[in-house]
Amino acid sequence: MRPGAGAVTLQEIHEQPAVLTRLIAHQTETIVPLARRLRRRRPATIVLAARGSSDNAALYGRYLIETMLRIPVSLAAPSVATMYGSTLVLRNTLVIGLSQSGESPDIVAFLRMARRGGALTVAVTNQPRSPMARAADEVLPLRAGVERSIAATKTYTAQLTALSLLVAAASGDGALLRAHEALPDLVSQALREGAVERWLSDLGSLDRCLVTSRGYNFATAREAALKLKETARIAAEALSSADLLHGPIALVERAFPVLVFAPPGAVAAHLQDVLARLRRRRGIAVVVSSEPALLRRSGYPVPLPAVDERLSPHLYIVPAQLLAHRLALLRGIDPDRPPGLRKVTRVL
Amino acid sequence: MRPGAGAVTLQEIHEQPAVLTRLIAHQTETIVPLARRLRRRRPATIVLAARGSSDNAALYGRYLIETMLRIPVSLAAPSVATMYGSTLVLRNTLVIGLSQSGESPDIVAFLRMARRGGALTVAVTNQPRSPMARAADEVLPLRAGVERSIAATKTYTAQLTALSLLVAAASGDGALLRAHEALPDLVSQALREGAVERWLSDLGSLDRCLVTSRGYNFATAREAALKLKETARIAAEALSSADLLHGPIALVERAFPVLVFAPPGAVAAHLQDVLARLRRRRGIAVVVSSEPALLRRSGYPVPLPAVDERLSPHLYIVPAQLLAHRLALLRGIDPDRPPGLRKVTRVL
Repeated sequence: MRPGAGAVTLQEIHEQPAVLTRLIAHQTETIVPLARRLRRRRPATIVLAARGSSDNAALYGRYLIETMLRIPVSLAAPSVATMYGSTLVLRNTLVIGLSQSGESPDIVAFLRMARRGGALTVAVTNQPRSPMARAADEVLPLRAGVERSIAATKTYTAQLTALSLLVAAASGDGALLRAHEALPDLVSQALREGAVERWLSDLGSLDRCLVTSRGYNFATAREAALKLKETARIAAEALSSADLLHGPIALVERAFPVLVFAPPGAVAAHLQDVLARLRRRRGIAVVVSSEPALLRRSGYPVPLPAVDERLSPHLYIVPAQLLAHRLALLRGIDPDRPPGLRKVTRVL
Repeated sequence: MRPGAGAVTLQEIHEQPAVLTRLIAHQTETIVPLARRLRRRRPATIVLAARGSSDNAALYGRYLIETMLRIPVSLAAPSVATMYGSTLVLRNTLVIGLSQSGESPDIVAFLRMARRGGALTVAVTNQPRSPMARAADEVLPLRAGVERSIAATKTYTAQLTALSLLVAAASGDGALLRAHEALPDLVSQALREGAVERWLSDLGSLDRCLVTSRGYNFATAREAALKLKETARIAAEALSSADLLHGPIALVERAFPVLVFAPPGAVAAHLQDVLARLRRRRGIAVVVSSEPALLRRSGYPVPLPAVDERLSPHLYIVPAQLLAHRLALLRGIDPDRPPGLRKVTRVL
């Protein structure tokens, strides 16, 4: 492997506290005005359109919007517009496109269709002069700086933060809004945790695994699985723990690895049950949590500081970014240049 | 393995033409009246709530509704109601719950929440006296007969057919409605195709793979992957081919197997490009298609009769059901009794 392999990705992972600090500091410029508009002209439905890591951020946004604002959310199927040529009827609908580069042709096409269909459209992007930004009525810039590595890391947590700031402001939940102030420090703490080193080499031969959580952190499971696939070439599939129990748990037999994101809060008791089921099947559970009771029962614990469940995805993805990075290097893959991938995927 | 292992599942797979014939014959009783109501009181949004195989049928319904009726569809996240206690505001919304047994506690809870939130609710189920049916305003019975095997097969294709009949009637698309008449015979043909036998033993050692398609048959890819996981214990992940190109294609290297559903129609050209990408990476593509040009380029072809793309999922899942069944037997697993699974999953 070339000297310095993975250095760019690692640097961007470590930029995350600074990126979140900047985004939070600039919230009054575009996020707060949009939130005010949302409160005034409450849409009946919100559609989130994205691909890849951005789609995982959208999945988080879906749970947060439905829980905090009680507005039903649809995660767009862009093919309906690009492959089948349908124009949805989207009166009284807010459509938010998320794309780091703002160049995904299918998301741009979906936003154009949405405007024709009567929606108010917003672009959440790191490139405020991109085609997606130009196609939308309003732009929320991520201000994350250039992302050079192929794997999205700092733009993913920036998207999560843009969405949680927007929902916190629109819902008028002061506690949620104030909880953002602690986020950069919590992410810094997550970056410093070295507990993984103790057992990382055990997983060097890993070539398939499941990744699971429920609710807000189902997004974390999906994003972690994507990072493991695209960076470390591990066949990692994410399933909500409810879906896992509906059949795929059949896969788990002795020593089958499952990565579990178990934050405190509404889903903790359910995830404790899931961990017990995995233990009975003799799977290996890697547990990311701030709960000593859950961490103690795993041979592969990843401790994190305690955090409001609604903002936990911003923190819980960090050890998974580091894990994918380290496993790639262990497997002889340069995380900065996963073979066969490009930064912008041009699919219609 | 016990004598007769897998016989129950195989019998139910072969009942599918008769099940579809019965459902189509009974459409005037409940499906057509509901379709008429949909045309009169057009909802602004449709929410589909389901888990497991039923959720895959819902995914098909999503593409069909958005393309044919132009109404935006949301696939429900039941945890929003069951874990976070949110009551969505669902005025002018149709909520359709899908569950073979009608007993999934989280789907029942979601339907109850939806009624409180102002939605019209419909239960699509094989058990018209189940808790889900009682929780809904209206019931569409699947009439598929008792499903004894743990893996859903005939109730899955029955759900697809209930949804396609409903959308055909609501859209007034006579061609789509009439195309249903040929379905039972086409499914019979798919059941007779024996081409898989030629190369099936090559795949006996398969323990992970990707499954892909786009549009209507993304549902087929998801359902095929679920069958391979729960019946044959193969770590099969489904990805829309657009998402596959956004990163996970990094997994595909020499001899990595990918199952591709490539029907004729709007997505055929795109899937031909995907097949070319897989070939350049030296993956193994198992191709299910009616297109000689696509089948010829695969060492593992699964030919099917030609069919309207909008009804192709009803047909394309059949070889995948047979494949999962045969691979389970090859791997020494009884498809009727996958270890550790129950027919009804009770998750809140």
